[in-house]
Amino acid sequence: MEYEKNMKVVLASHPNGYPKEDDFEVTESQIPIVHEGELLLKILWLSLDPYMRGRMNDIRSYAPSVVPGETMVGGAVARVMESRSPMFNVGDIVEGNLGWQSYAISDGLGLRKVDESLAPLQTNLGVLGMPGLTAYFGFLDICKPVPGDTVVISAASGAVGQVVGQIAKLMGCNVVGTAGSDAKVDFVVEELGFDAGINYKTQNIPDSLDIYCPDGVDVYFDNVGGEVTDAVLARINTWARIAICGQISQYNLSQPDLAPRNLGILTRSQAKMEGFLVFNYENKYEQGRNRIAKWISQGKIIYKESVTEGLEKAPATFIGMLKGSNFGKTLIKVSQ
Amino acid sequence: MEYEKNMKVVLASHPNGYPKEDDFEVTESQIPIVHEGELLLKILWLSLDPYMRGRMNDIRSYAPSVVPGETMVGGAVARVMESRSPMFNVGDIVEGNLGWQSYAISDGLGLRKVDESLAPLQTNLGVLGMPGLTAYFGFLDICKPVPGDTVVISAASGAVGQVVGQIAKLMGCNVVGTAGSDAKVDFVVEELGFDAGINYKTQNIPDSLDIYCPDGVDVYFDNVGGEVTDAVLARINTWARIAICGQISQYNLSQPDLAPRNLGILTRSQAKMEGFLVFNYENKYEQGRNRIAKWISQGKIIYKESVTEGLEKAPATFIGMLKGSNFGKTLIKVSQ
Repeated sequence: MEYEKNMKVVLASHPNGYPKEDDFEVTESQIPIVHEGELLLKILWLSLDPYMRGRMNDIRSYAPSVVPGETMVGGAVARVMESRSPMFNVGDIVEGNLGWQSYAISDGLGLRKVDESLAPLQTNLGVLGMPGLTAYFGFLDICKPVPGDTVVISAASGAVGQVVGQIAKLMGCNVVGTAGSDAKVDFVVEELGFDAGINYKTQNIPDSLDIYCPDGVDVYFDNVGGEVTDAVLARINTWARIAICGQISQYNLSQPDLAPRNLGILTRSQAKMEGFLVFNYENKYEQGRNRIAKWISQGKIIYKESVTEGLEKAPATFIGMLKGSNFGKTLIKVSQ
Repeated sequence: MEYEKNMKVVLASHPNGYPKEDDFEVTESQIPIVHEGELLLKILWLSLDPYMRGRMNDIRSYAPSVVPGETMVGGAVARVMESRSPMFNVGDIVEGNLGWQSYAISDGLGLRKVDESLAPLQTNLGVLGMPGLTAYFGFLDICKPVPGDTVVISAASGAVGQVVGQIAKLMGCNVVGTAGSDAKVDFVVEELGFDAGINYKTQNIPDSLDIYCPDGVDVYFDNVGGEVTDAVLARINTWARIAICGQISQYNLSQPDLAPRNLGILTRSQAKMEGFLVFNYENKYEQGRNRIAKWISQGKIIYKESVTEGLEKAPATFIGMLKGSNFGKTLIKVSQ
């Protein structure tokens, strides 16, 4: 795939419920001209992540919304094609928030030069990128696991969950993951070494947790929310630690999801529930990335990717990811 | 009031919803005989606290339930009438979990000798007792307040809330309390020095929070749960700290209270929500008690008590407290 023009995916309208393809618009324009101090970047890989659904809403959050007509935001790996900046040279591979487009102009701020020797380029959007670092810092710093803890992870085969679970196994935890298909459950158990997996679509969640967590739950790393979270909270141990990383079950509701109030569980379990954003750990990214890279090189951490070719397929792929049809880290291969 | 017999209030049946007076039974028996190693205690003051509602249920919690036929549990201040133990002398004033009764036999374990010089005896069940220590450690250790924080406290005039708010003011926080009557709101503002109060029964909670917390909420000390908590959570700032001390709005429901799921707020605010039990701080009780006593002696902390005379009135007083008809720390004066 090569794009002779700049293809962009822009937000057409704020979605109500699940986004539809016509909430996006694919546009073409001339490849922009590089001014003094700027770089022209050819995007090779685009990351699709659940947080992007929040940016499509017209409500306050931790980052500004995308306004209809604007290019969708997103992390990407790109090659420097032209450089009129001292910061990067032609041919450098960089990673940054470059958006859903085939080319980008950048002044270089916020870009990071990718170490091509560590692992394939696209891992800088996955296991060595934002999701991997989210897993590393969220699990280690928020959940403060110790060997022997029973750790439950929702969306266990996803970009974040798969890394959390493997770090938990490295530490000597008992690890149980929830996922939305038997193939995903098989993957986390057989490939990633989880102790057990639960298909939340076909298995009874409370009963399955009773079977796989007979001593209760010490740590819960939540990417999903909803009924899975209710069932885990009902089984937490004293001193449990709960990281609220994501709540993907709640991102596409047109009506609020009502559930029994259950905060009293936190009191009687003396439990801590904490939300976090990976940006908080920016000054430690290099440490985290190097540790994960070392585990990959040692074969202690593996990763699964769900790759779609062609930027024009990003909207459908993104919608599919929100519905769970991805399997592993969702990526768009934009250019060679 | 003097009791020539041992009056006990026992649990007659596990309540469904709000307890009724006939969920309790008042019994009389002989004052028990003291064996070697034991003390006979005459109970002077009995504490009534919301946590007791949980003990009346037949479900798992952090402490065993009271079984029908058993004496209701509860903290009390008592005088040693007879001592066949080296631990305490006749005339000593002690505090411990002695239950809803007029006399108690104890082996002395778990009892604490009260320092009668610090403050009136019954304060050992309130501002210098479990509620005051809950406020002290829960606020300082869980909420980690700093000067300038906006602190919201639910059940602000209650035994715990009144102490939290006054410590917050000592620290230079902006303090807003919610309570269930105009008299309680006036008290926390005019007597305790809170910056504002909200009558959650008559005022619009979200609108009032917008007025009194124009810069959002940094710390929330929750005794209540329910809609107050929903409204506060919707207004928390980045890095907010939330102590889940109690959820009294949820203790007397015969049907689950359904509410929109809102844990995503924790992620986007990078907020921490933690439940705690004061027993966790047992090794620091003396420090906390001495600090509060010093503040009382300096006039920096005052306290309000809601005293009812006569153990036989404990059931009705307890039910009233659960409905908010107390005003300050709820106490039963059992004997002179």
